[in-house]
Amino acid sequence: MTYGSLPRKEDARFVRGRGTFVDDLVLPGMLHGAILRSPHAHARLVSVDTSAAEAHPKVRAVLTGKDLAERGMAWMPTLSHDVHAVLATDKVRFQGQEIAFVVAEDRYAARDALELIDVEYEPLPVVVDAPAALAAGAAVIRDDLGKADNHVFDWSSGDEAATEAAFAKADVVARQDMLYPRVHPAPLETCGAVADIDAITGKLTVWATAQAPHAHRILYSRITGLPEHRIRIVAPDIGGGFGNKVGMYPGYLCAVVGSMVTGRPVKWTEDRSENLMSTSFARDYHMSGEIAATSDGRLLGLRVRVLADHGAFNGTAQPAKFPAGFFHVFTGSYDLPAAFCSVTGVYTNKAPGGVAYACSFRITEAVYVVERMMDVLARELGLDPAELRMRNLLRPEQFPYTCATGWQYDSGDYPRALTLLKEIAGYDGLRREQAGKRARGELMGLGLSFFTEAVGAGPREHMDILGFGMADGAELRVHPSGSAVLRLSCMSQGQGHETTFAQLVSAELGIPPDEVEVVQGDTDRTPFGLGTYGSRSTPVSGAAAVTVARKVRERARQVASAMLEVSPDDLEWERGRWFVRGVPGRGHTIREIALAAHSDLALPEGVEGQLDASTVYSPPNLTYPFGAYLCVVDVDADTGQVRVRRFIAVDDCGVRINPMIVAGQVHRGLADGIGMALMELMAFDTDGNHLGGSFMDYLLPTALECPSWELGETVTPSPHHPIGAKGIGESATVGSPAAVVNAVVDALAPFGVRHADMPLTPAAVWRAMRGTPLRADLAIS
Amino acid sequence: MTYGSLPRKEDARFVRGRGTFVDDLVLPGMLHGAILRSPHAHARLVSVDTSAAEAHPKVRAVLTGKDLAERGMAWMPTLSHDVHAVLATDKVRFQGQEIAFVVAEDRYAARDALELIDVEYEPLPVVVDAPAALAAGAAVIRDDLGKADNHVFDWSSGDEAATEAAFAKADVVARQDMLYPRVHPAPLETCGAVADIDAITGKLTVWATAQAPHAHRILYSRITGLPEHRIRIVAPDIGGGFGNKVGMYPGYLCAVVGSMVTGRPVKWTEDRSENLMSTSFARDYHMSGEIAATSDGRLLGLRVRVLADHGAFNGTAQPAKFPAGFFHVFTGSYDLPAAFCSVTGVYTNKAPGGVAYACSFRITEAVYVVERMMDVLARELGLDPAELRMRNLLRPEQFPYTCATGWQYDSGDYPRALTLLKEIAGYDGLRREQAGKRARGELMGLGLSFFTEAVGAGPREHMDILGFGMADGAELRVHPSGSAVLRLSCMSQGQGHETTFAQLVSAELGIPPDEVEVVQGDTDRTPFGLGTYGSRSTPVSGAAAVTVARKVRERARQVASAMLEVSPDDLEWERGRWFVRGVPGRGHTIREIALAAHSDLALPEGVEGQLDASTVYSPPNLTYPFGAYLCVVDVDADTGQVRVRRFIAVDDCGVRINPMIVAGQVHRGLADGIGMALMELMAFDTDGNHLGGSFMDYLLPTALECPSWELGETVTPSPHHPIGAKGIGESATVGSPAAVVNAVVDALAPFGVRHADMPLTPAAVWRAMRGTPLRADLAIS
Repeated sequence: MTYGSLPRKEDARFVRGRGTFVDDLVLPGMLHGAILRSPHAHARLVSVDTSAAEAHPKVRAVLTGKDLAERGMAWMPTLSHDVHAVLATDKVRFQGQEIAFVVAEDRYAARDALELIDVEYEPLPVVVDAPAALAAGAAVIRDDLGKADNHVFDWSSGDEAATEAAFAKADVVARQDMLYPRVHPAPLETCGAVADIDAITGKLTVWATAQAPHAHRILYSRITGLPEHRIRIVAPDIGGGFGNKVGMYPGYLCAVVGSMVTGRPVKWTEDRSENLMSTSFARDYHMSGEIAATSDGRLLGLRVRVLADHGAFNGTAQPAKFPAGFFHVFTGSYDLPAAFCSVTGVYTNKAPGGVAYACSFRITEAVYVVERMMDVLARELGLDPAELRMRNLLRPEQFPYTCATGWQYDSGDYPRALTLLKEIAGYDGLRREQAGKRARGELMGLGLSFFTEAVGAGPREHMDILGFGMADGAELRVHPSGSAVLRLSCMSQGQGHETTFAQLVSAELGIPPDEVEVVQGDTDRTPFGLGTYGSRSTPVSGAAAVTVARKVRERARQVASAMLEVSPDDLEWERGRWFVRGVPGRGHTIREIALAAHSDLALPEGVEGQLDASTVYSPPNLTYPFGAYLCVVDVDADTGQVRVRRFIAVDDCGVRINPMIVAGQVHRGLADGIGMALMELMAFDTDGNHLGGSFMDYLLPTALECPSWELGETVTPSPHHPIGAKGIGESATVGSPAAVVNAVVDALAPFGVRHADMPLTPAAVWRAMRGTPLRADLAIS
Repeated sequence: MTYGSLPRKEDARFVRGRGTFVDDLVLPGMLHGAILRSPHAHARLVSVDTSAAEAHPKVRAVLTGKDLAERGMAWMPTLSHDVHAVLATDKVRFQGQEIAFVVAEDRYAARDALELIDVEYEPLPVVVDAPAALAAGAAVIRDDLGKADNHVFDWSSGDEAATEAAFAKADVVARQDMLYPRVHPAPLETCGAVADIDAITGKLTVWATAQAPHAHRILYSRITGLPEHRIRIVAPDIGGGFGNKVGMYPGYLCAVVGSMVTGRPVKWTEDRSENLMSTSFARDYHMSGEIAATSDGRLLGLRVRVLADHGAFNGTAQPAKFPAGFFHVFTGSYDLPAAFCSVTGVYTNKAPGGVAYACSFRITEAVYVVERMMDVLARELGLDPAELRMRNLLRPEQFPYTCATGWQYDSGDYPRALTLLKEIAGYDGLRREQAGKRARGELMGLGLSFFTEAVGAGPREHMDILGFGMADGAELRVHPSGSAVLRLSCMSQGQGHETTFAQLVSAELGIPPDEVEVVQGDTDRTPFGLGTYGSRSTPVSGAAAVTVARKVRERARQVASAMLEVSPDDLEWERGRWFVRGVPGRGHTIREIALAAHSDLALPEGVEGQLDASTVYSPPNLTYPFGAYLCVVDVDADTGQVRVRRFIAVDDCGVRINPMIVAGQVHRGLADGIGMALMELMAFDTDGNHLGGSFMDYLLPTALECPSWELGETVTPSPHHPIGAKGIGESATVGSPAAVVNAVVDALAPFGVRHADMPLTPAAVWRAMRGTPLRADLAIS
């Protein structure tokens, strides 16, 4: 085993500024594209006159929706069985929507020429408020689909009648409405693409910020009509994704058509404002929770109604089968005998989004609602929130546990995680401190959350993206001298794949991690698979890597058997070496075996030369990482300013390959949680104007707002993963917001506050204390 | 089956000038290298002063042998267990040898700076004549190896005593000395490389004119000490190889060190003179043949003594085990009960070479000597050469036939080929025409040759290059929509792999050839294997491609079985479709199966998703293509000018995948034969000055010198190749020179000429008619 906190191999280039991101690419003769965007949130396009732009001396092409329509490419399919306008043809449906694409000799000329395009708009009434979107008389946004209203879908999970019955028997029922507002993944690198179609071979190469290059290739193939072997997608280094780079954006396709039209490579790179305005948002869930319990705090049932704001188009990376994604697991980490939820999706005049942001497809919202409800119920029952949770957490002997909506949790010891959390935190001492402070009129709060993720998408019965399975391939080549190359379908956006996956192979084969090159992100060089999102790299591609390494080990056993002239059954493996059982001195290292396998000197009939192997791993189930978090806040009663004083996180992601990378992922996610809970917000005014178009408006947490994280861990291996790993990528993002909100609400208890919506900015806290909350997302002040 | 004369897919780019050859590559910041070469054929290096060159404002680095020696890279191992100087350290050993490498901002500055390098030489006696190289007192060339003379090796094949005995019983023994002079493959594109080492990752990428990228990688790894996964060799389009690009040249390594020293990419490209002067020559065999027969023309024995001129270093691509390569098959196509040959290798002050030129490792020389001896014997016996051959050709029932030196020929019907040749030619009519002309004093000649190749290197017992086996890998990926990518270890230099291999896959799987992308030439994208030379692409990689396609078909059967819910045994395959036996309507095409295999909708336990497969093919034996050729010449008695009036070639290369490509290969090789027989020559003067440094001096045949080729074919499948193919690449080069020489000698019979050495220039023919031949290779006039 060579698991451990190995420094990241990729950092050698990153810390020296030698990474290669999409915008670093320069191709001979490359042109530059820029997008004209709508200033209106809802308007009919009367005319688009590009003649002045086309006359600009440096402009090589101007594309409009009409041009794309002639190629059958004005609309692209989303992964939720909707269509998404590439360049608008009939109407614009959100502020920032793409209308035209200018291709010019340089970026500056392309931008300048945008101002020469003359667009005539006929403004239409704007729908920004999701609850109002379904009201009679609301402007219909998707008339292109022949719709008469803004309804997208209805979806439900669980047994409604059984839940009704459970509520009827309850001693206590707590209710709370809450909003998980619209936020943005905001990766450091914005989205972009360089497209180059070879006029002779017809082969299209797209370098793009793509978390899922093979899935992108399928989409390009369907949209352009090119067969897959004529399309190569390359994701070079990626500066953060968090779900923002799962989907395809109009700019990518415009670059492709730009290259087709000009015969030259075309680069398109978003600026920050474009990224914040028009790429995958997340959340925007209006939720009503009801929780039923006995008077001694035994949970009986949970009911949630959701109004889901999907913006103007339904999703990009939305899983097709479940309009509400993984909201199925809204029962969280608790032994809840009955549960039911219903989700209604609506269109509004906002950018499309609604799914992916380090969120495991709605688990973030699901965890938030159940964890808020637990605190609301605890208050109702007069129980300490930790005690209420401890009474209801799933017990180790219940695993594998099938929840009320039918999903099967793989493994865990939840009470142990909560107990460890309390120990690390000194929970009882903190409560005593809080009591003392309250007595002095100081506002201190403790916020707990316990979360279970469902990741590693995944088995077909859970997911069906694109009509393809969710299996991932891995190929392992061992060179004659014993160094190796592992090719994966997943794609790092900063998670450290080059290190973690090298460690996986190293542990199985005894090749040093530095001698294992990890190749990813290039569809011409890697096997088919669905990429990196939903924390699935380790659960799926990691399993594939281990499986393929074990195949190589078995091939090596055959070769060693021929070299040593003994039966394969008489060989034993230890530390990178097959040796004769009972004769440890007689054996060969993987390096020696690799050389022999290439020289075919000793290979018997039927044993193929070389040691390469490949595999396709289709996970038998999801994996279920979990964790217990505690946030300690102090609130300034005069200003409403929240300070996160401590944050203790106990995570269980099964076996940890590189604990340092795991810790880094947790740190990132905890910062995410503080950001969402306290400051991040995509707001719109009533005209649909987007109010978060820069990092001056859309606030991200910095080191100043973050405490020194305190981490703990338990290790419950997943029973169905080859090494028992579960994935960690999104855990902290999912688990932490509720802890922060619970802490602030706890701090505000002296004011009678039992709930306040995110983001808990000083203004929001100040209003909450005064009992006058407002809908922050609608910019009503 | 989709075999047939499909137009070449690669021609779409070649005919439009859109190929990408090494010299087309431009990398950001790329520098340019140039090589300082020795004007002396043998001299001690007293000093090399580079200070003035280093001071040139555009020069970034100057490398000498001393600089390389400090890195342990002044010498590179050859594949014949010799070493070859990269940059000279002690002596220069041939004219044109590499002394220094200048790296500059552009190619012109690099060339200019060469003239600023001051080298002091101490000239040494020069050895250019191979027979004189072993004489006492000859200057010792390889003192670096501690040698006391110029002897390289002694090698023999066959049973000397048995051959002696056969000769003792003979009625007739014919003897002839002959020279196969030094020639050059002369590909249209010269050799070159672009090297780029990444300062951060340490990964070296070399784009190079490489027929065998994986073998090159091993050599780079051994020379630089970098592990293989840190080396990527990319052979882009290659403009002809013919063996010239099997080996590695000093310029490649200088570019690598240049990149290491400057931190920038470095390009080096030969000019024509450098290519002709310093890269792989071929032949230079001084041969003495003796053939024994009964008076009725039954062959009893063959004895050949060879003095092999290897130049200053022994080979680059010389097979390690056999210093004389495949000369084993010098018994040719005849039922020769006893045979023996001995080869002595010598060093001379000429460029290293001696192996690869569309020659199957010395088979060209072997065929030449036996086919000349057959004509000499026919003259002695007063038999028509066709009749003598027919009496002694191997008979179909003798296959598989083990020749006197132990090699096993796979299959053939030789008499049928010769009969067909005579029919196409109208042989008897030609003889009558010749008789008439002779009566009128006109010189007309008929020259026959019959050759057997041994190709597809090959099984380990035959070859051992680099200590590695000769197996080749193939990987086949079938995309969800049913198009495919085939990755091969071999590398086209113009042979049309992208078409032929696509046809192979197409025939096995029913995917149209246009939907099969063939990937080659990039070690990061292709499986390990030894590359393209010795006509081995079809015999080895072709077999690998068919094998891997059949593996995919079997995987498809499993998937189809699950889709159709019948046992795999009940399925039948026809035209790209698995269907239920007896129910032709119930089935699925490979396209449908590919989609299902990726969606894993229907896959039963144990069946992995996707349809990808890989294989490693290790050929069980060589394949033995063969052919019968007839050349008809007219000779101008006044000038000695030879005109090839007709050339009829009957080839048998087993099953033909793309007959048009096969015909093109034959055309090329026949032109080769005319060139070698009539004009090509690498001559040296007694000071070792190279006299063939341009295409004004080294003459190549053009359409003017070539007749309209007349081709015939027989098809004897190889019994051990999956589709019975044997390879065609070198056949005509091997078989044709003897036919041309035999024709000219036949034409000159009235002058009593019974042999004349190549090249049969007008001067040589004129001298032969007058009985005053000279050694052309020594430029003695």
